[in-house]
Amino acid sequence: MKNVKFDEQGLVPVIIQNAKTKEVLTLAYANEEALQKTIDTNETWLYSRSRSELWNKGATSGNTQEVTAVRLDCDADAVIYEVIPNGPACHTGEASCFHETLAGTPDESKADMFLELTSLIEKREQEMPEGAYTTYLFEEGVDKICKKVGEEAAEVIIAAKNRDPQELAMETADLFYHVLVLLQEQKVGFDEVLDVLKERHAVKTTSK
Amino acid sequence: MKNVKFDEQGLVPVIIQNAKTKEVLTLAYANEEALQKTIDTNETWLYSRSRSELWNKGATSGNTQEVTAVRLDCDADAVIYEVIPNGPACHTGEASCFHETLAGTPDESKADMFLELTSLIEKREQEMPEGAYTTYLFEEGVDKICKKVGEEAAEVIIAAKNRDPQELAMETADLFYHVLVLLQEQKVGFDEVLDVLKERHAVKTTSK
Repeated sequence: MKNVKFDEQGLVPVIIQNAKTKEVLTLAYANEEALQKTIDTNETWLYSRSRSELWNKGATSGNTQEVTAVRLDCDADAVIYEVIPNGPACHTGEASCFHETLAGTPDESKADMFLELTSLIEKREQEMPEGAYTTYLFEEGVDKICKKVGEEAAEVIIAAKNRDPQELAMETADLFYHVLVLLQEQKVGFDEVLDVLKERHAVKTTSK
Repeated sequence: MKNVKFDEQGLVPVIIQNAKTKEVLTLAYANEEALQKTIDTNETWLYSRSRSELWNKGATSGNTQEVTAVRLDCDADAVIYEVIPNGPACHTGEASCFHETLAGTPDESKADMFLELTSLIEKREQEMPEGAYTTYLFEEGVDKICKKVGEEAAEVIIAAKNRDPQELAMETADLFYHVLVLLQEQKVGFDEVLDVLKERHAVKTTSK
């Protein structure tokens, strides 16, 4: 394995991280064979120090992980697997193994709220659960969703003119939600919007 | 140290993670004293295996880290420090030590695009750099920003009615950007909007 420095037991620590939400799921270990198998198969392979054997995460539990990237640190003695998990990473059923807080307040990871919301909206469109408001919007179609976008934008403007911070936060949430439903109805990924923002705000310092 | 299992060298691996962006910055090690000092001081304390000594991250470089949470994993043999970094974590000057890709494509971390954008908008309002479009919006004030919100919402609706995915992505980006500027003008944190979304979509399965 090019560059990777394994320790005296032939192991390298592996940080398993959710590729989308960036949540750290597990700290585990790989030997050279496990690392190579991970790279070759895009599945999480590790080395169990307690059982002294290779370990294909999810092979028995079904909670597999698709590995989308393998990264190495500057002194080549630690690895990240970026994964898309098909279930909880932890044997306790929690998404992440790090569920005890020793000090401070863990960040509630709101940055990925939009990603979660787009996933939920996508799921609603596929499953169309009865009684769900999102189902209602998809049933009514593009005109209804556009009307709601216009309505919520107007409500954002009115809240701002009234200088009502709570109302503004609520109406902005409503506006963003309905725009995300519209994106889904039009099969435009939220990622494409983020790409535009990223590109634009990296270069945009002057413009009218 | 309650619960924490240190290895035969008295060390526990520490994943240092940016509390806001969730980027993994460094994998390092702490002994009991370093962990306790971290908890007591909210600064990153580690144990250097090569120099065999305690190490206060940033004490010489100035690239300190404010520790906002310390988390422990399910088998108590790995720790996360959630930090707000005051500079690059890596001695190479990179934000993260993990800058080599062994396989796959690292996720470009677009989830935190909104957080970056809100920081940029906040900075623009403080510094008001000449020629910047955001400066222009703040100079013009709430009416102008609201007009732009209305205009961009209309453009989103028209793009959707035209079923033009590229246009829709661009207009949605414009709408979101102007709404973020409006939030800043009104001193409403984007976090408050995310709180509303989080709360609402956790409970909202039926409603009209």
